[in-house]
Amino acid sequence: MTLIKFIEIMAILVGAFSGFIEARRKRMDLVGVFTVAFITAFGGGTLRDILLDRRPLFWVIHQEYAILIFVLALVASPVIRTLRHIVSERLIVIADAVGLGLFSVAGVSAALAAGMPLFIASMMGVITGIFGGVLRDIVCNEVPMVFRDGKPYAICAFLGNWLYLMMGKYGVEPDFALWSSALFISGLRLLTWKFDLRMGR
Amino acid sequence: MTLIKFIEIMAILVGAFSGFIEARRKRMDLVGVFTVAFITAFGGGTLRDILLDRRPLFWVIHQEYAILIFVLALVASPVIRTLRHIVSERLIVIADAVGLGLFSVAGVSAALAAGMPLFIASMMGVITGIFGGVLRDIVCNEVPMVFRDGKPYAICAFLGNWLYLMMGKYGVEPDFALWSSALFISGLRLLTWKFDLRMGR
Amino acid sequence: MTLIKFIEIMAILVGAFSGFIEARRKRMDLVGVFTVAFITAFGGGTLRDILLDRRPLFWVIHQEYAILIFVLALVASPVIRTLRHIVSERLIVIADAVGLGLFSVAGVSAALAAGMPLFIASMMGVITGIFGGVLRDIVCNEVPMVFRDGKPYAICAFLGNWLYLMMGKYGVEPDFALWSSALFISGLRLLTWKFDLRMGR
Repeated sequence: MTLIKFIEIMAILVGAFSGFIEARRKRMDLVGVFTVAFITAFGGGTLRDILLDRRPLFWVIHQEYAILIFVLALVASPVIRTLRHIVSERLIVIADAVGLGLFSVAGVSAALAAGMPLFIASMMGVITGIFGGVLRDIVCNEVPMVFRDGKPYAICAFLGNWLYLMMGKYGVEPDFALWSSALFISGLRLLTWKFDLRMGR
Repeated sequence: MTLIKFIEIMAILVGAFSGFIEARRKRMDLVGVFTVAFITAFGGGTLRDILLDRRPLFWVIHQEYAILIFVLALVASPVIRTLRHIVSERLIVIADAVGLGLFSVAGVSAALAAGMPLFIASMMGVITGIFGGVLRDIVCNEVPMVFRDGKPYAICAFLGNWLYLMMGKYGVEPDFALWSSALFISGLRLLTWKFDLRMGR
Repeated sequence: MTLIKFIEIMAILVGAFSGFIEARRKRMDLVGVFTVAFITAFGGGTLRDILLDRRPLFWVIHQEYAILIFVLALVASPVIRTLRHIVSERLIVIADAVGLGLFSVAGVSAALAAGMPLFIASMMGVITGIFGGVLRDIVCNEVPMVFRDGKPYAICAFLGNWLYLMMGKYGVEPDFALWSSALFISGLRLLTWKFDLRMGR
């Protein structure tokens, strides 16, 4: 398994895991647990692809990820109970930050490939990174957490997306631009988490 | 009128009817009653078609169904009051079960025609069958009922969709596969309703 | 700047402004304020374009409007506080009515260009005019206001859309049909507001 494949699976699992937890908190049944986990993991990329009119969707090409979440949903309750003891909050935040970086920059890249102008491309990257959680909260009948907790989550993605766009503009080698921007987002997110930074309201 | 046309109209009416009732319970006005009924009746198929990038949408081709719901919304209050006395819960559950079977399998069939792999096709069938109600509940600001009541509604659709897919794989005559799978879903749904089966949480 | 450009910007600003206010009422942070304003301003047209499979989206072509809302979100709190004192409710209602008229008829026109039948085209116009507010309310975890306040907001759009469709059918000059129908919607909306008309429930 390549490194990127491993990171991808980790990021999807973290998304699905946060969906599992939210769905259980809402006392949902098996169908709800699976659907909410699925929406959290793939919702951001799916919305981006609908806005860009890109097909096939990510989870259609990678059917195996959809099946993985399905299997996990079937065993969700004991898995979550076990994971709660094994997995520390620190590990979840790290994996989530890595996912945010990777998916945001990948979203920008997809938007550029579809011919989007720069500002729109930066927004598409943020949408890819955060709208899984937004849709999860809407389905769970909550005001989306990312819109109200004042933590600079989307803003880390936004800044890193512009780093990536600027690198592209000034001829930096594409692969390096992608990885360093993703790393920048993940690092910035972890720093703001470490020091518990908040935006003013 | 052919049989399939009749069943189709019945299924749409049942969807719209459940939208009417939910919208009235939320004290919505005429615009809300129409919109929620429309979303309940056509939301599942519309979401599927957006995900598959299929156009024109069902209710664009069959404009007459949209107009029918519009007219019903105009007379909704007295109609619902009357129907409550005429239509038994049993009849609604039966019509809804028939609709679930028919639309789910039709959703799988549309997904296969769009080149989807098997698991995705089975999911598209479930989406077609249940997301009208999911979107209704989101617009009405509720946690979707189908995600939390523990009744095996989506699961009946899922199992029947796989029956249909397996029949296709083993060369069963398409029309027979479609009808028997739809019947299987409707029958299973009615059985689980009859015996009030619940999934564990 | 042409007149239509000016009206367009006014209508978008009014949409964004109502998003700002709702997001602040929900105590959202910068990310929420921007996203909700954006969804309110562009949500209706975006949903219409997704249903019609039209691309690029309006806010992709007019990136400058997205940037404008972004800048306004950055200064939203003081701006809203200032605007509250400068801008009367009357002015907001007028600008909103003008936007409703313009966007509804533009939505019908886009739907006709995409080959939609008449009733569907009239619905697409209403969707363009009202779904920004509907999506705003869903994200803010409220039952959409336009579905429950009994004010004939969507109905003004619906009637004006049919005026436009009928003018087209009877060979009225397209530009005149568009402007007079938009004016009809705006005027009707202002009249019903002036006399505080309500629909029965």
